[in-house]
Amino acid sequence: MAKSRPELLRGNAIIGQSGGPTAVINQSLVGVVEGLRGHKAVGKIFGSLHGVRGMVSDQSIELQKVPQARLNRIANTPSSALGSSRDKPDPAYCQRIMAHCAKYDIRYFFYIGGNDSSDTCRIVDELAKQAGHAMRCFHVPKTIDNDLMSNDHTPGYASAAKFVAQAFIGDDLDNRALPGIKINVIMGRHAGFLTAASLLARRRKNDGPHLIYVPEVAFNLEKFLADVERIYTDLGRCVIAVSEGIHHSDGTPMLEKLSAAMDKGGLDKDAHGNVQLSGTGALGDYLAEAIKKSMARHQKKVRIRADTLGYLQRSFAGCTSPVDAKEARASGKAAAKAALAGSLGGSMTIQRVGNSPYKVAYKLVPLTDVAAKTRHMDPKFLVGDNDIAESFRKYLAPLVGDLPEVDSFV
Amino acid sequence: MAKSRPELLRGNAIIGQSGGPTAVINQSLVGVVEGLRGHKAVGKIFGSLHGVRGMVSDQSIELQKVPQARLNRIANTPSSALGSSRDKPDPAYCQRIMAHCAKYDIRYFFYIGGNDSSDTCRIVDELAKQAGHAMRCFHVPKTIDNDLMSNDHTPGYASAAKFVAQAFIGDDLDNRALPGIKINVIMGRHAGFLTAASLLARRRKNDGPHLIYVPEVAFNLEKFLADVERIYTDLGRCVIAVSEGIHHSDGTPMLEKLSAAMDKGGLDKDAHGNVQLSGTGALGDYLAEAIKKSMARHQKKVRIRADTLGYLQRSFAGCTSPVDAKEARASGKAAAKAALAGSLGGSMTIQRVGNSPYKVAYKLVPLTDVAAKTRHMDPKFLVGDNDIAESFRKYLAPLVGDLPEVDSFV
Repeated sequence: MAKSRPELLRGNAIIGQSGGPTAVINQSLVGVVEGLRGHKAVGKIFGSLHGVRGMVSDQSIELQKVPQARLNRIANTPSSALGSSRDKPDPAYCQRIMAHCAKYDIRYFFYIGGNDSSDTCRIVDELAKQAGHAMRCFHVPKTIDNDLMSNDHTPGYASAAKFVAQAFIGDDLDNRALPGIKINVIMGRHAGFLTAASLLARRRKNDGPHLIYVPEVAFNLEKFLADVERIYTDLGRCVIAVSEGIHHSDGTPMLEKLSAAMDKGGLDKDAHGNVQLSGTGALGDYLAEAIKKSMARHQKKVRIRADTLGYLQRSFAGCTSPVDAKEARASGKAAAKAALAGSLGGSMTIQRVGNSPYKVAYKLVPLTDVAAKTRHMDPKFLVGDNDIAESFRKYLAPLVGDLPEVDSFV
Repeated sequence: MAKSRPELLRGNAIIGQSGGPTAVINQSLVGVVEGLRGHKAVGKIFGSLHGVRGMVSDQSIELQKVPQARLNRIANTPSSALGSSRDKPDPAYCQRIMAHCAKYDIRYFFYIGGNDSSDTCRIVDELAKQAGHAMRCFHVPKTIDNDLMSNDHTPGYASAAKFVAQAFIGDDLDNRALPGIKINVIMGRHAGFLTAASLLARRRKNDGPHLIYVPEVAFNLEKFLADVERIYTDLGRCVIAVSEGIHHSDGTPMLEKLSAAMDKGGLDKDAHGNVQLSGTGALGDYLAEAIKKSMARHQKKVRIRADTLGYLQRSFAGCTSPVDAKEARASGKAAAKAALAGSLGGSMTIQRVGNSPYKVAYKLVPLTDVAAKTRHMDPKFLVGDNDIAESFRKYLAPLVGDLPEVDSFV
């Protein structure tokens, strides 16, 4: 039985980008523009600058006028070309968003972002309904954390995963050349997907990372120190992947715990009371110091270093997964096409429909399925408290694509 | 008038890699092998594992047996395929090196490395002369620091420079999207060449880095804080490139100075009494903290983040300059060819003989010209205490090659 179709709204569209940038978020932006452009129902396609902030401050550009050559260049540029925002709309802020939509006759709202952004999208959707302003709201996923519900994976993740894998491939060779203990801290407050991507660097015998710590499993410092020493004794070296979000069994982030234990304090907290995890080398330094002390107790003089991969993971120019770029563009286009097919709104998720050959489908789900929720790694991918299962490679490899072939005599 | 040629020695050769790895040091290794292989004067071509340590511990492999396909794979692999070492040979150590050379009838010694390695090469050369062991010693330059005397530039530098440029291109876009103050700390204890490479990311109006600090100029914290605040007031954001080797006017590294001032202490020192600069996020964190305090005094709440690019700069798999790779291979081959042409030894430097088109020549210079000396940036490239001259772009761009084209609406 055919469903009755709601009337196709006529008016303008607006697109915003929100949260942390990724290497392919501009592909999604351009995908939405390409999907909308030229359709008779859509007049102007606004680009709101710095997320919804552009709507409350009346700062936007007209994307339908941008030549295709520039759109292609934008699509291939990392980071958010419209600018981003971490604003959390309160009721007064929301009123101004709605006033903007009314003023500019906006009937289609596209928000490209992670779980916070999908929640903003949901709030705007509800607000429009309350205000009686006919508008369809679409969320286009983006996050290097890969932590959105109802998705097989999210645009932005695979490119960051590729960066992490290439970093570990090189750094493990560096550690083979000059053996010692090396810690690399990887982004991810609650989900370990990006840290787990370091597994892709492990291809030959004794390749690192030899230990992988994700936020899904409680971190025990004594166990960690014993594991590092065991690997070091075995191989004469040890490469460790640590998520910035690792936490104590009581739920406190280890960065906070170690900072207090080492009497250093003074960490920044954000508006939500979260300790700042990125943009500091502190966690890696604390762990390196703890290993140094522990090894010294055993009279071992060992070369111990820590790197924090930092913002390069999401912004490095020139390390994009082709599959990721293609899917990010397709997600944006699919959201636009859904809107123009009369859909009432939703989040445009990616579903895997086959592994050999790898194939995905784009599926619109209700905003409430995704909004403000966090997906964690499936327990089947977690091995004890310090490793990731080989089956995760099968999940991730098709998304990342080819990695550099390497070889060494040591 | 023709010079009388010394007799071409017949025997075996040995190759070692030393110091910090680079993305192209294996190209030089393979270049030496390709240059020597098949010549009637040379029997075996040993690869000494972990620098000269492989000679004192009798650990080497026979490189003449390695198939070309594997050599090519090795050449394209970052880091030192033979392993590396930071050992400083003392007299007893030197005796064991000579014993190894005598035992294995080694007549050609090739050492691929930086200034410390060229000094080791010089010592081995003197030692052989003293011992009456006929052997020719060749140094093949490698260093991401680009700080070898008598060279226009050194293999390894351009690939690391490319990594730094791509990091800043992406990170500056990230900072445009989510404005704030961002510090990126770059490797280089005494020379600022790698930090100065961040200049390549500055291509459009207001592109970062907006401030660049190198070890060649004394660092003044008060001036730094004032400069950062000025840029931030102007642009609403500020991206800063800082060399890990920046130091106070009294010569003390700023990391040591700030560590003491903030009463944190506890930094590692190496055997030479140098404070450990790499493998810690401390300098970036101290500078971020100092900016935070300074801005708070002016009642400004600003997003301040610091990343330390770390070992990725020299080891990242998949970010190599094609010119660098080609020149590294050619340097190794040129050293081998010089040896087989009867040269008595030396360091195989790169000289630029043209800029349009870019062209280089390989020239053997005495080991003592390079050994244990440090080249600094030409003062003509330094602008005040916080910037690099545009003329440096002309010097660097041909070495790095194409960089990603980017575009943004903000």
